[in-house]
Amino acid sequence: MSEQDHVIERLYAAILERRTADPAVSYTAKLFGRGTAKIAQKLGEEAVETAIEAVLGNHDSLIGESSDLLYHLLVLWADAGVTPAEVWAELQRRQGISGIAEKQSRKGS
Amino acid sequence: MSEQDHVIERLYAAILERRTADPAVSYTAKLFGRGTAKIAQKLGEEAVETAIEAVLGNHDSLIGESSDLLYHLLVLWADAGVTPAEVWAELQRRQGISGIAEKQSRKGS
Amino acid sequence: MSEQDHVIERLYAAILERRTADPAVSYTAKLFGRGTAKIAQKLGEEAVETAIEAVLGNHDSLIGESSDLLYHLLVLWADAGVTPAEVWAELQRRQGISGIAEKQSRKGS
Amino acid sequence: MSEQDHVIERLYAAILERRTADPAVSYTAKLFGRGTAKIAQKLGEEAVETAIEAVLGNHDSLIGESSDLLYHLLVLWADAGVTPAEVWAELQRRQGISGIAEKQSRKGS
Repeated sequence: MSEQDHVIERLYAAILERRTADPAVSYTAKLFGRGTAKIAQKLGEEAVETAIEAVLGNHDSLIGESSDLLYHLLVLWADAGVTPAEVWAELQRRQGISGIAEKQSRKGS
Repeated sequence: MSEQDHVIERLYAAILERRTADPAVSYTAKLFGRGTAKIAQKLGEEAVETAIEAVLGNHDSLIGESSDLLYHLLVLWADAGVTPAEVWAELQRRQGISGIAEKQSRKGS
Repeated sequence: MSEQDHVIERLYAAILERRTADPAVSYTAKLFGRGTAKIAQKLGEEAVETAIEAVLGNHDSLIGESSDLLYHLLVLWADAGVTPAEVWAELQRRQGISGIAEKQSRKGS
Repeated sequence: MSEQDHVIERLYAAILERRTADPAVSYTAKLFGRGTAKIAQKLGEEAVETAIEAVLGNHDSLIGESSDLLYHLLVLWADAGVTPAEVWAELQRRQGISGIAEKQSRKGS
């Protein structure tokens, strides 16, 4: 991990590190201790909150809930042994982003 | 946008570009056309699917559903005028990742 | 309300009654006080929990979470001025239950 | 099943009956055929839609989505071997509705 790494990768690394911390002081460690079903439930809760803030048009609350959602998604990945790199590979594969970005850069945008 | 950019930023840029595409050929353009409530609903659906795949322990399906979830989250941000940079700033602020990453690097891990 | 009424109608009546109770002693009154978005969020949370318990095959927890889900659905209806009777009418209209039940009784089942 | 039965019980009976119908003509039969995870996912989706319609203040859409939610909840129960009676018993136990309804009737309401 270096400062050059993307915030998502740095957060994921921090989550992996906190996994073995004292559950009494680390919310992340406590969450891992409660197990997969509880982590999955929290993900669902945060998504519902994110959806509601979007519908209400609350810009700042949407940012806050999106942050909660991403944090819990990364905990879910860590719990399942999924790495961010695996998800980035899938996103690139299915969206064909490389190609689109290339075309875009050729257009000078 | 360059190839050095993170896949999330590139996907967000692609979503912004597709926003004005023909809804008949672009799922993204069609989704924007259906409005905020529909986009928010799709986010909720994908989160439920992600949660269920995690509980079932399906590694590959979890990657697939997580990709769908992230894609719809980025569409929701674009629809609301939220940029990824705003969310990264919030994640750094609340998680204090910089500090943790720094401590970690000092420990040589 | 009489003992002959269905438990759902009796719970709805109890929720309406508790609406004006002291939020310090009534969870229902407190929930109404937090507003529509919070009630809607709770509904979403309970649905995710219900879905997860179903996937896990936990019979008793599914009953418990389903109860929580129904309770919060009734609070959402009360908050929105929707009566159970309006939902029953819609269920009968769209499912054509009357007809199906009639055919069934004619078959002697 | 008689016409005296509550619409929920009649819908549940109709769902049980449709379970063995031809999936080509019955949505219910098709849903059972797709399995527990898919039914649970549909429940989550309908709950998110219900929550969003409530937040938007759409009275009629809230009734429509609540109907969808209840239908899928009953399918989930049928799939899991949970009966409505088991949920009513739990609702009565935890909410202490009987007592509340009694107090209410003594007050002459």
